[in-house]
Amino acid sequence: MTLTSADPVTDGPGAVALLDRTRTAVDPQIRSTVETLPGSIRRVAMYHFGWEDADGTPAAGQAGKAIRPALVLAAARALGAEEARAVKAAAAVELAHNFTLLHDDIVDEDPTRRHRPTAWTVFGIPDALMAGDAMNALALRLLAEDPHPASAAATARLAACVIELCAGQQADCAFETRGPREVSLDECVAMATAKTGALLGCSCALGALYAGAGEEEVAALDSFGREAGLAFQLIDDLIGIWGDPERTGKPAGADLVARKKSLPVVAALTSGTAAGEELAELYSRTAALDERAVRAAADAVERAGGRDWAQAQAADRMGRAVEHLARAVPDLSAAGDLLALAEFVTRRTR
Amino acid sequence: MTLTSADPVTDGPGAVALLDRTRTAVDPQIRSTVETLPGSIRRVAMYHFGWEDADGTPAAGQAGKAIRPALVLAAARALGAEEARAVKAAAAVELAHNFTLLHDDIVDEDPTRRHRPTAWTVFGIPDALMAGDAMNALALRLLAEDPHPASAAATARLAACVIELCAGQQADCAFETRGPREVSLDECVAMATAKTGALLGCSCALGALYAGAGEEEVAALDSFGREAGLAFQLIDDLIGIWGDPERTGKPAGADLVARKKSLPVVAALTSGTAAGEELAELYSRTAALDERAVRAAADAVERAGGRDWAQAQAADRMGRAVEHLARAVPDLSAAGDLLALAEFVTRRTR
Repeated sequence: MTLTSADPVTDGPGAVALLDRTRTAVDPQIRSTVETLPGSIRRVAMYHFGWEDADGTPAAGQAGKAIRPALVLAAARALGAEEARAVKAAAAVELAHNFTLLHDDIVDEDPTRRHRPTAWTVFGIPDALMAGDAMNALALRLLAEDPHPASAAATARLAACVIELCAGQQADCAFETRGPREVSLDECVAMATAKTGALLGCSCALGALYAGAGEEEVAALDSFGREAGLAFQLIDDLIGIWGDPERTGKPAGADLVARKKSLPVVAALTSGTAAGEELAELYSRTAALDERAVRAAADAVERAGGRDWAQAQAADRMGRAVEHLARAVPDLSAAGDLLALAEFVTRRTR
Repeated sequence: MTLTSADPVTDGPGAVALLDRTRTAVDPQIRSTVETLPGSIRRVAMYHFGWEDADGTPAAGQAGKAIRPALVLAAARALGAEEARAVKAAAAVELAHNFTLLHDDIVDEDPTRRHRPTAWTVFGIPDALMAGDAMNALALRLLAEDPHPASAAATARLAACVIELCAGQQADCAFETRGPREVSLDECVAMATAKTGALLGCSCALGALYAGAGEEEVAALDSFGREAGLAFQLIDDLIGIWGDPERTGKPAGADLVARKKSLPVVAALTSGTAAGEELAELYSRTAALDERAVRAAADAVERAGGRDWAQAQAADRMGRAVEHLARAVPDLSAAGDLLALAEFVTRRTR
């Protein structure tokens, strides 16, 4: 599950207002940039962002929650920049994020995104693939064409981040074909860092670059976003096992049904405990896991210490995130929005 | 068929020496750049470039013919730049080209490239797709990180070109699902321009940018490359119908067997002649075309004027290419290498 695939959240009113404001500031830039795409590819992109229906009819639009653009703008503000000057950078990270969603949906064969059929199911794989390719280049083009002095450094940084995202997604796919005893916890953390942490970190780093920050501050903001991103992933993985079906809209233990090698699962599998072995046995079965087996698997993750480990890790990562932030923004009152966003993504209850 | 899918050529000794020299100058840069990719993705890329076998064993390497990097370096030289300073730009266009090959092979379900199994058949679609995504970003990253003053303009220009390439490939796929009377010649020319001309044009433009040329010269070099690229595509399409199987390594009329809507075919289909109607009827059949039907189709293209049109167009496009070149490089003796490369790609006999 990715941030944007979740339902609209109701917790964290400060962050919600911040996200609303971000969408108001950044959506027009994203949209006008997408509208520069050649016709056939623009159609797929407009559909993906929810601005058009499959037949090209204008739609209300329900793009993502704009966490990443909000981090860009909040990081820029925290370091004293005018938010308006970083709007293109904010739009660029959201374009890059959405390019990965277009391609991830193809690779994962996901049928729905944001409560609508995914682009590849509507337009076919070639069109969705090419639209993603074009959006990848479009994100970098927007940065490269920005007359802001941070343009070149930001372009190179986002390009490096995209490469890391691809490696993370590649590792995630590779884990699926490996046996339950064949993925180490370090590999799993590295995958989650690349797949989820990298772009949150890059978003914060771009905000810092656009504020004219020095290398150390940029690196600290990147680390803040990465650690917060990993904390988010840990919480998201816990929800994937113990989330309330009524609130998540998914069956109980959805990640266990799919035998996902999520962080708490791999922590349990690699725990060297008897419960870890029970879980490995359940994950090795060829038949589908019924309700009882899913409950047994969740119980095994818990007895093997996977649940406690993930909760402790999430808290630890958030602690590290704040330490990194404090290095770059000693007066944490200026970083209130960044903290609110980090807490928002990790305190989601569904 | 793309430039690099053809057999090594034997004609045009001047151009061949130029391409050899280009590979010597640029391959180490491409390779060291590819080697910065994260492990799993690097493996796919190293295989695709022929530097490693599927199991990671070092291989002799049989990458492409390096037409695009050669155009970058020749354009830079023609406008008075030191070739060495444009090596990163030359490597970047070749990386961009190869990202499109990785994805085109997936979309077109092509089993072989450069006499080896395609990456997606060896590593699976997810890995090949992610490697292509990463290579797209890597090409732009290489330009964005280049300290050369043309870096930003070149990055933006290559990104814009990638978007055009995607639109061209998208159109090409879309043509396949349309009936023989449903593709206009203008659409077909626009597709070929985007899919083949754009990157040859961009290669020349990047060379000009790296030589510090002004906007008009850059645009003229771009037009030179585009027109030469379209001439190449026309010739390639003629070979796809009338090429000698002994020399092309493909069955006679390969493009007709596949019912490709290539340029001479669409010229015939839209000719308003009785022969054009015969061709449309053959293309509308649901059964496979046997040898006799393929001969009849080739004959219909010829009688409908498709062959003559394509030959005349190729000559016309080459004429226009030279005119554009003369605008930017009034002393054409300085542009000898660019002319040799343009003639090389259009005079291929297989």
